[in-house]
Amino acid sequence: MREQGLAAYIIPGNDPHASEYMAAHWFEMQWISGFNGETGTVVVTLDQAFLWTDSRYYLQAGIELKDSTIELMRESDLDCPSITDWLCAHVQGFVGVNPEMFSVNTFKDWKNQLSEAGIGMKSLDLIKPLWTEGRPAIPQDKLYPYSEDYAGESVQSKLTRIREILKVKCPNGQYALLVSALDEIAWLFNIRGYDVEFNPVVISYAVLEADRCTLFVNESKLDSAGRNYLEFNDITIQPYEAVFDYIRGLRGTVLYDGARVNEALFEAISPEAKAQHLPSPVIAEKAKKNAVELEGERIAMRRDAAALTRFFHWLEEEAFLQPVTECDLMDKLHSFRAMQENFVEESFGTIAGYRGNGAIVHYAATPDKCAEVKPEGMLLLDSGGQYLDGTTDITRTVWLGGDIPAQAKRDYTYVLKGHIALATVRFPRGTRGNQLDALAKQFMWEAGITYGHGTGHGVGHFLGCHEAPQNVRTDNNPTPLELGHIISDEPGIYRTGEWGIRTENLLAVIPAPATEAATTNDEWYAFETLTLCFYDTSLIDFSLMTPAEIAWLNAYHQRVYDEVSPLLSADDAAYLAKKCTKL
Amino acid sequence: MREQGLAAYIIPGNDPHASEYMAAHWFEMQWISGFNGETGTVVVTLDQAFLWTDSRYYLQAGIELKDSTIELMRESDLDCPSITDWLCAHVQGFVGVNPEMFSVNTFKDWKNQLSEAGIGMKSLDLIKPLWTEGRPAIPQDKLYPYSEDYAGESVQSKLTRIREILKVKCPNGQYALLVSALDEIAWLFNIRGYDVEFNPVVISYAVLEADRCTLFVNESKLDSAGRNYLEFNDITIQPYEAVFDYIRGLRGTVLYDGARVNEALFEAISPEAKAQHLPSPVIAEKAKKNAVELEGERIAMRRDAAALTRFFHWLEEEAFLQPVTECDLMDKLHSFRAMQENFVEESFGTIAGYRGNGAIVHYAATPDKCAEVKPEGMLLLDSGGQYLDGTTDITRTVWLGGDIPAQAKRDYTYVLKGHIALATVRFPRGTRGNQLDALAKQFMWEAGITYGHGTGHGVGHFLGCHEAPQNVRTDNNPTPLELGHIISDEPGIYRTGEWGIRTENLLAVIPAPATEAATTNDEWYAFETLTLCFYDTSLIDFSLMTPAEIAWLNAYHQRVYDEVSPLLSADDAAYLAKKCTKL
Repeated sequence: MREQGLAAYIIPGNDPHASEYMAAHWFEMQWISGFNGETGTVVVTLDQAFLWTDSRYYLQAGIELKDSTIELMRESDLDCPSITDWLCAHVQGFVGVNPEMFSVNTFKDWKNQLSEAGIGMKSLDLIKPLWTEGRPAIPQDKLYPYSEDYAGESVQSKLTRIREILKVKCPNGQYALLVSALDEIAWLFNIRGYDVEFNPVVISYAVLEADRCTLFVNESKLDSAGRNYLEFNDITIQPYEAVFDYIRGLRGTVLYDGARVNEALFEAISPEAKAQHLPSPVIAEKAKKNAVELEGERIAMRRDAAALTRFFHWLEEEAFLQPVTECDLMDKLHSFRAMQENFVEESFGTIAGYRGNGAIVHYAATPDKCAEVKPEGMLLLDSGGQYLDGTTDITRTVWLGGDIPAQAKRDYTYVLKGHIALATVRFPRGTRGNQLDALAKQFMWEAGITYGHGTGHGVGHFLGCHEAPQNVRTDNNPTPLELGHIISDEPGIYRTGEWGIRTENLLAVIPAPATEAATTNDEWYAFETLTLCFYDTSLIDFSLMTPAEIAWLNAYHQRVYDEVSPLLSADDAAYLAKKCTKL
Repeated sequence: MREQGLAAYIIPGNDPHASEYMAAHWFEMQWISGFNGETGTVVVTLDQAFLWTDSRYYLQAGIELKDSTIELMRESDLDCPSITDWLCAHVQGFVGVNPEMFSVNTFKDWKNQLSEAGIGMKSLDLIKPLWTEGRPAIPQDKLYPYSEDYAGESVQSKLTRIREILKVKCPNGQYALLVSALDEIAWLFNIRGYDVEFNPVVISYAVLEADRCTLFVNESKLDSAGRNYLEFNDITIQPYEAVFDYIRGLRGTVLYDGARVNEALFEAISPEAKAQHLPSPVIAEKAKKNAVELEGERIAMRRDAAALTRFFHWLEEEAFLQPVTECDLMDKLHSFRAMQENFVEESFGTIAGYRGNGAIVHYAATPDKCAEVKPEGMLLLDSGGQYLDGTTDITRTVWLGGDIPAQAKRDYTYVLKGHIALATVRFPRGTRGNQLDALAKQFMWEAGITYGHGTGHGVGHFLGCHEAPQNVRTDNNPTPLELGHIISDEPGIYRTGEWGIRTENLLAVIPAPATEAATTNDEWYAFETLTLCFYDTSLIDFSLMTPAEIAWLNAYHQRVYDEVSPLLSADDAAYLAKKCTKL
């Protein structure tokens, strides 16, 4: 830093692809700090160091930073300054960052904010020359073609559609679209890989032009099948690191999504080209699942439900024959999923939160630190699978035994009523998720209860379990819900030290017919519930339920039984029948 | 235009104060086009002229432009180009505008869009030298001090609070805040006037500095009481037109709200000063009514309800003894309001929409064009009053006689259920209106029905009946609902040619106590219903109502009777008692 004239250097917990889940190669923040949480930013000055992280990680960071000189900055606290505010108040001169780890937008925001205090930003990578020993390599696993039988659309068709969108923006055809998010590249080229846990993606960059497209990926990832597939589809292959030189050579309009593309790519754009921000059309098209993708989801859901049914049956009848921990439950559930056809891996780390642990929203039990589970009290189980034909994500909360407190039933029922209200709403085209969010909260709000997490996130198709741009949150997300979008529906109630309750299904946006009573020509949408697993009806306070809600539950349970029982043994099917008994 | 080298000149239907309702002095768009609608923009080129207006005015504009050479551009149609797109495609060189009629933000947007096609913008006023004959003067009526007994806060206290907010932005105290919206000035200085119909405001500008504040207003508006009041409060008086020179002389930071302040004021800011956009703190503070303002609203509501009760009683028992039109109803309602203490004027033009006319959302009956009303079918009545102690705005829809179609009852009941759902929601602090919008729509959505207008607009206190920044709409409005905000709650269903149904009360945001079931320390808000007028229960389809909704209706009707009957004659009170009979 002194050689470079820097007053501070920033190490954010990011990778160059704006990924939520990252390859270990990019755990720079964790490497320098010793803090192993997923979210955090380290600020190093000439005589101090700080870690900003949010309230989910206060406890963990406190423990992991105990013997270090790094000071914890609790960024969820109202009186905690933002990193830029802190820098403006405490440093002068220049702040260094690795531009690969910042989106164009974030870099620009920081630059503007710091410039108000006369601070400059310098792009440079101080970690690479330091972290040489023990740094994990970028994964070298082979990529593989993703069959059109699952994808439902050929690469050529996708490229043509995206090019049509780009041609409207640049009628002269002199454009190049930078694509750096790994799920976008996987979708666009119908490829998958093993580079990031829970995410079947391939570490790479792509550039799409009117007359060619280029995938920047390490040679080591290509076997002959992969190479043939790409060549057959006229996708030019270049080394991963060659993307910067390639961008330098581009002329005409270079399109980038400022929220996704990293600053280093942006800085490589030649002054002779015209850099122009464009919300990624690949993200928007990817989110609208086609008929084949939706049908794949439906089929994967049946298998996922079969695994869950077997798990819950085991949990009721066998689990407690010997001591069992939250981690044992996670392993057992994984084993049931792993027996299913087309299962590849989990879609995220299972959350098995027993009693008070269920109230810790991002709880992750580890073998050395997990609770013993007994046949009494509440268990929250949030899990999902990556199947070749679809991605699942489901939360069920069940009562393991003993008397159920009245408040537990009320909490479960408020959550269930909100979950049903969202699942059953009809809405006109153009409606955004944030307009629907309160439907899932209205009943608990009446009781003075709310929750801080989103009600629904987008879900990819054999891709990220969290997918932009659609969601159901309080935030002002301008994206309307579109046909083929998949979102989760997961309201929750969390009582510290007592229990966490969350109920989650995945929903697809489908057309709803206009009614006879319609007064306008609006196009109407509704949700199709994709997830197929019974609810624990012992937790329902029936005095709070309407006849319409009971009818919905009965119809859903009937459907669950009809679709899932054919995949089960007679014994498991009988268990499921009992769970789906008409109320 | 030729002298000035202009390819086009724009005449928008705006005034320099970003007013919704304008003094006739600024009806430039109407003067040049002959079109008398409230919303429209005229574009004049060297050989053509066009009027852009929205679907509410297609019919009227078609008639009023029939004998002119001005072409109608139907801006609500999907295939209608925006004005800037049209200009980019059809003109070259320079486009002229009067910068007083454009907000800073709109001017900048246009400038950016036009510059992409190489078109420049020139600030100049071509209308003033042309429209000399018959142009109405700026109103010369006297302003008057608005008593602190109604305002609930002294000018000095308001100035101090706003200055504290500005000091945080400009700690050195070298600032000047430009205030150009008339309701902001009226609130800040506790003054009112007669300059704009339905809006008790004073045409003026204001500049607030750390050590002085200046009101720019014509001498003719000041009698000795007004002058003494302003001088007593250390408000410097300058002529209305002097604001430009005054701004030119400002140094330090000049703060302006780009959405409100006009471009001409902005252009007057000296290059030696620092111009900085700031969302107006006056708007934000004005919207949060204090205890005295809220109590004034409650009292005004009782009087308004007394007038409405007398009107509906007359409508049922006397109106049809002779032929009666929509305009007769408007006049009669006005006469009942005018008898009430503290009544000043209507808060907007009454909408009396009989049968199919009720389905025309911005219907305005005129003496030469209004329907005869008979004792049968549906009547929608949207009206309000400006009282010294508060502003009202209420819609009731009533059935005048004959058999009620089942669909009419269903429509009325969907609207009522949504109206109640919004009125009764509890929500955590930080919730925005657009999160609550679907609560008012959920029941009609289930039936495949929706409406295009907002569910709720902000309402001022003896100021604009439409007030920023709070509202309940689908739009992504970032403003959370705050204690003291007043909004309307007015869902509706409109069947072209058949009927329009809308039910509207005003609601105030009030604190709600946390419940025992609370899981977090959130602060909770609820709505207090301010409006006090019975609903037409003959239109309710009780099979669609829940027991909780009926209980709410009964409690509301009891409250209406208790609060309004003391203001009525025995005969009118007996009528009200009948209307408020427990269901």
